[in-house]
Amino acid sequence: MGNDKKPDEFEIIARYFAPLAAAEPGALGLGDDAALLQPPPGRQLVVTTDSLIAGVHFPTDEDASDIAARLIGVNLSDLAAMGAEPWAYTLSLALPEDGEWNAGFLEAFAVALGQQQEIHDFHLVGGDTVATKGPLTLTLTAIGTVSDGQALRRSDAAAGDHVYVSGSIGDAALGLKVLTGELTGLPKEHADHLLARYHRPQPRVGLGGRLFGIASAVIDISDGLVADLGHIARASGVEASITLDRVPFSAAALAAIALNPALVEAAITGGDDYELLFTSPASQADRIEDLSKNIDLALTRIGSIGRNGGKGEPVRVINEAGGEILIKNGGYHHF
Amino acid sequence: MGNDKKPDEFEIIARYFAPLAAAEPGALGLGDDAALLQPPPGRQLVVTTDSLIAGVHFPTDEDASDIAARLIGVNLSDLAAMGAEPWAYTLSLALPEDGEWNAGFLEAFAVALGQQQEIHDFHLVGGDTVATKGPLTLTLTAIGTVSDGQALRRSDAAAGDHVYVSGSIGDAALGLKVLTGELTGLPKEHADHLLARYHRPQPRVGLGGRLFGIASAVIDISDGLVADLGHIARASGVEASITLDRVPFSAAALAAIALNPALVEAAITGGDDYELLFTSPASQADRIEDLSKNIDLALTRIGSIGRNGGKGEPVRVINEAGGEILIKNGGYHHF
Repeated sequence: MGNDKKPDEFEIIARYFAPLAAAEPGALGLGDDAALLQPPPGRQLVVTTDSLIAGVHFPTDEDASDIAARLIGVNLSDLAAMGAEPWAYTLSLALPEDGEWNAGFLEAFAVALGQQQEIHDFHLVGGDTVATKGPLTLTLTAIGTVSDGQALRRSDAAAGDHVYVSGSIGDAALGLKVLTGELTGLPKEHADHLLARYHRPQPRVGLGGRLFGIASAVIDISDGLVADLGHIARASGVEASITLDRVPFSAAALAAIALNPALVEAAITGGDDYELLFTSPASQADRIEDLSKNIDLALTRIGSIGRNGGKGEPVRVINEAGGEILIKNGGYHHF
Repeated sequence: MGNDKKPDEFEIIARYFAPLAAAEPGALGLGDDAALLQPPPGRQLVVTTDSLIAGVHFPTDEDASDIAARLIGVNLSDLAAMGAEPWAYTLSLALPEDGEWNAGFLEAFAVALGQQQEIHDFHLVGGDTVATKGPLTLTLTAIGTVSDGQALRRSDAAAGDHVYVSGSIGDAALGLKVLTGELTGLPKEHADHLLARYHRPQPRVGLGGRLFGIASAVIDISDGLVADLGHIARASGVEASITLDRVPFSAAALAAIALNPALVEAAITGGDDYELLFTSPASQADRIEDLSKNIDLALTRIGSIGRNGGKGEPVRVINEAGGEILIKNGGYHHF
């Protein structure tokens, strides 16, 4: 990350961050005590906060642009899961006193934030820059909006609903294994695909905003497919089952699983997918098929919701023949 | 901070934080992907973010309740400076992997947050809890509201305006010197007063909301009286002068300055006062006097705003005879 001289807090704001606030008048140019935002009429606010720490949530040598994409991605994924459109965000940067950052890092980070802002029509409106003796720590608070009464929740799945996921599952978890050297032997093209999916989460903002009237419950997959389906099931007071053979895997993930079949466990429990997982009444199947075509994103039915049998674990993973694949603590015990 | 077993993230949320979200339905019990807030009609949103790091912004052995009061206080002080009422906040907690925190700490911290919430009618609506190899790091994003068009800015001070401060100046900076052992020899009562002012900032929320129509520019004093008056002057394109003899000091601060006259420099440049500093047309003097009585808070005229003479430093500190006391880089050079 270079060795140039460190700018002070006011220089950092003026040089790197004020330009990111230029398009939202309510940011007041980052020059006042707080932002002043006009809530759009007829819309509710959706607010979420996520922190990322170097060495915990991303590798300490992660590119500035990948850090920016992850920070925006994980927060917008939460907005997407509520059906909200991105609007504004605050950013707190705790910069290590020595080493990990400098003007070159901040420059690349700000440029990448700007690119993400353009993709998602999302605007910096405030923040804080502090020094820390610890690792680089970033906290983003995202504010989105949703039409009154149209927010999607995770608590309204009902017995008989189908379970869907967007995109493909497990790429990020397998990408992390490529990164750490636990997964080797893949053709470069597949390894690169998995790494890209790990480094640059793609929040499904365009999907979330179109699920009102279709989905009964929605969550974004950050903890892993099985765990997040468990969150829906518990919040809704139901049980869920997914058929392993129906879970959509990318060609790269399939190649990895072919090398080592046990990796399917990491794929469905490993997390960081940032796909949307949703439930929907069976009557919506055609609309979901149309939606998938319209937004050019796979929406795959992987399971069903059933009544809560009170047996404890809220999610069962089964094979096509209906045989149960035992899972405990979100991980497989046998296969 | 004790040695009890560390709870996991879900236990932390359920046990300590969900109760803090109970009174705001939009928090969704902290159980969904994000909060869903209904903006009050006729009001704009005021949003600010501040981070606090152990060892940087407060001592590493600070009481949990003082950390909570500081975290809420510094953020609400920013809302107060815009004239906003507190509404909702998100909290990100990065907890050190070993040592500095545990269930006992979290319990005390959450109880203190609850007390602050009650004082200020302010509600937790979301957040994140992560582990860090670094120091305890807390980031709060505060959302307040203000009637349409009534937000107070720092950029509208005009030549001829008077300069006022609330409360007393310098207590926190002197309290920090008591804490670090740089200031000794004070009677216990005075030392305790200064320490309390350092440990527990009191945001002037009740004042900020009443300054619309009275103040032309407002800022909260976090960087120090001289530096923050400089922020108003620069943002407004004016110059300011303050008369040192008029700056309100507490009996404890006066006792400290009597022991060591050079401490007056720390008092007016040291920061962390979290008082409001505002400018106001001369015609408002009577209303300010009435307001001071109504809210039982000293509002002291300490200086004036003049035209920008283009001389560089935007703030002059003078004595009653009009002689200038030179300041450079926010610190005194001679007296």
